[in-house]
Amino acid sequence: MADAHAVRRERLGEYCSAGGADAALVTKPANVRYLTGCAPCGATLLLTRERALLVLPADLPPDDTGEHPYAVDLPQLAAPGGRDTAELAAEAAASYGVADLAVEEHDLTVSRLRAVQALAPGVRFGDLNRAVEQLRVVKDEHEVADLRIAAEIGDQALGELLESILVGRTERHLAMELERRMIDHGADRAGFPVSVGTGSHSGRPVHRPTDRRVEEGDFLTVSLGAQYRGYTVCSARTFVIGAAPAAWQVELHRLVFEAQRAAREALVPGVLAAAPDLAARELLRAAGHVEQQPRPFGHGVGLEVREAPQLGPGEMGKLDNRVPVTVGPGVHLPGRGGVRIEDTLVVRPAEAGGPELLTITTKELLAL
Amino acid sequence: MADAHAVRRERLGEYCSAGGADAALVTKPANVRYLTGCAPCGATLLLTRERALLVLPADLPPDDTGEHPYAVDLPQLAAPGGRDTAELAAEAAASYGVADLAVEEHDLTVSRLRAVQALAPGVRFGDLNRAVEQLRVVKDEHEVADLRIAAEIGDQALGELLESILVGRTERHLAMELERRMIDHGADRAGFPVSVGTGSHSGRPVHRPTDRRVEEGDFLTVSLGAQYRGYTVCSARTFVIGAAPAAWQVELHRLVFEAQRAAREALVPGVLAAAPDLAARELLRAAGHVEQQPRPFGHGVGLEVREAPQLGPGEMGKLDNRVPVTVGPGVHLPGRGGVRIEDTLVVRPAEAGGPELLTITTKELLAL
Repeated sequence: MADAHAVRRERLGEYCSAGGADAALVTKPANVRYLTGCAPCGATLLLTRERALLVLPADLPPDDTGEHPYAVDLPQLAAPGGRDTAELAAEAAASYGVADLAVEEHDLTVSRLRAVQALAPGVRFGDLNRAVEQLRVVKDEHEVADLRIAAEIGDQALGELLESILVGRTERHLAMELERRMIDHGADRAGFPVSVGTGSHSGRPVHRPTDRRVEEGDFLTVSLGAQYRGYTVCSARTFVIGAAPAAWQVELHRLVFEAQRAAREALVPGVLAAAPDLAARELLRAAGHVEQQPRPFGHGVGLEVREAPQLGPGEMGKLDNRVPVTVGPGVHLPGRGGVRIEDTLVVRPAEAGGPELLTITTKELLAL
Repeated sequence: MADAHAVRRERLGEYCSAGGADAALVTKPANVRYLTGCAPCGATLLLTRERALLVLPADLPPDDTGEHPYAVDLPQLAAPGGRDTAELAAEAAASYGVADLAVEEHDLTVSRLRAVQALAPGVRFGDLNRAVEQLRVVKDEHEVADLRIAAEIGDQALGELLESILVGRTERHLAMELERRMIDHGADRAGFPVSVGTGSHSGRPVHRPTDRRVEEGDFLTVSLGAQYRGYTVCSARTFVIGAAPAAWQVELHRLVFEAQRAAREALVPGVLAAAPDLAARELLRAAGHVEQQPRPFGHGVGLEVREAPQLGPGEMGKLDNRVPVTVGPGVHLPGRGGVRIEDTLVVRPAEAGGPELLTITTKELLAL
């Protein structure tokens, strides 16, 4: 793995050279982690042609020996109390004779960049143009393996919940229980707050759990994703509570299921990134479900829960091999509830078996 | 309360006018909340001399009627899908004829400010200079009331935990249980991840709970804070597990207890913000505990867990009446553990009874 990080740093270095920059100052946590394997909050990575320097904040939790537990194989500098790591990295860049320094303008605030520039007076500053995010789109097999484990953890937690009594429990309690179970199964943490929506809250694309209790006859939508070694997947399932789902519930679930299958089947290397969304949306639209302001039905996942590529209806890019994405259409009927079904899959060519499904919990309309 | 927010917006308007700005663009979530009473993620507030406009992101969770649940008494604009609320607010400012717009340069990234500026070509941009943060330092009695409830919630959760069996449970489980109990008692959420450190992890200023299990004879440090209506307090306590604490444990606990008391007693309106920290540090230093890179023993609390004023040893400002702050010295002996005791108090004059203690759980060395 240390080699993998070195290779990534080398690719970023080539990108910088091609753009005329001597060095890169990487401050965005997911990008620092991608390039070093560690992501202490507030760390900055300076990458010049000749060397890499990881600047760590002063107040990291030490281990039992009093040492910082970030023993990655890179030269390190600990920021004295209160100093900003990006400022120290810029000072170092100036002392190394860097002439053109590319920074992450989508991460640095205006104030912070100004402070950084003041400490490196002879240096010209440019934008790194999300180069690390672009490198991160196609995953290597180490990354896919971590995503696979993250998906297994979420599947285990959800499977256990489905075996327990749900009626009478609140959305908030169910969400907390799922977070606890994911951690019990080895997750770093929940990759994002677990969403549980029941009754009229089911099927919402965004929902913060409330104190509403699960009732007989409810739809129940669960949206969760474990983070494992920094990598997060997303999945969502919708079930029905009680023995006999109503006819409208069966019908709506079947529709979203078919739409989600159409989206999954559109995941082919080289296809337009909009294709899965459009495939799902066409089926929903034909059934009369039109969103005024369409939310994309999918996005890339990795060190961020939501990263490139976007899979919205207007995307013009193409999907590459080994890009993990979510596919999660849904329909919400205000006042009644709805259905959302989401998976995380890795784009693979047909000769390798097609898209690899990571989140394998059944998508049937279980009656719980 | 609606009046309180209007008064705050008026004060900010006066600050802007005094600095030559026509209008302010507020993007930092805690600041938007302070000025409007609501804080949907990604909202932007535009405040001109004549009007206020709240720009809300498109993908907020709607309520059951399909409406956004942010019914504050302000003109609102919903951003069309994918549009940045700050960009829309800047367009609105330009259309209102704003000449000088103050933005939050410590919150906006370089890329975002550039995009905002491009949409308001005739407008001059300046910095709001953390004006809202300065307004937020001294709290009104509504805010103190919310902090008081937040403190009660944390005290209740901690009190219940102390009645349960602790030996054999992991730090992570205890931390999750405390978070759940705070939510059960009415917290919005944990204001920050609960920290539980046992054995050699106890007394650390920063500690992320691990799978270490509580053992007989351990020190156990718990650091927690509930968030209530957006307001968070902090408290930390250290206990000992089993019947008879060792002599070094009794001694270290007494020392930190005395240091923390000295810091609390230094909380007087008009005193230097460094005074509480220095009072505690002097006692610890006299007992031979010197930190190489001193971490401040306290800070302001409110809509952010850590906000102005800082109470570090080098602070030159003065403490005002009705400023809630934390006071939390500690000593950690690498490999052995340590003690940390933290309270949240509101600075009050002697004639009003002196500092008001919000976090009232006992600070004695309980043997659990």
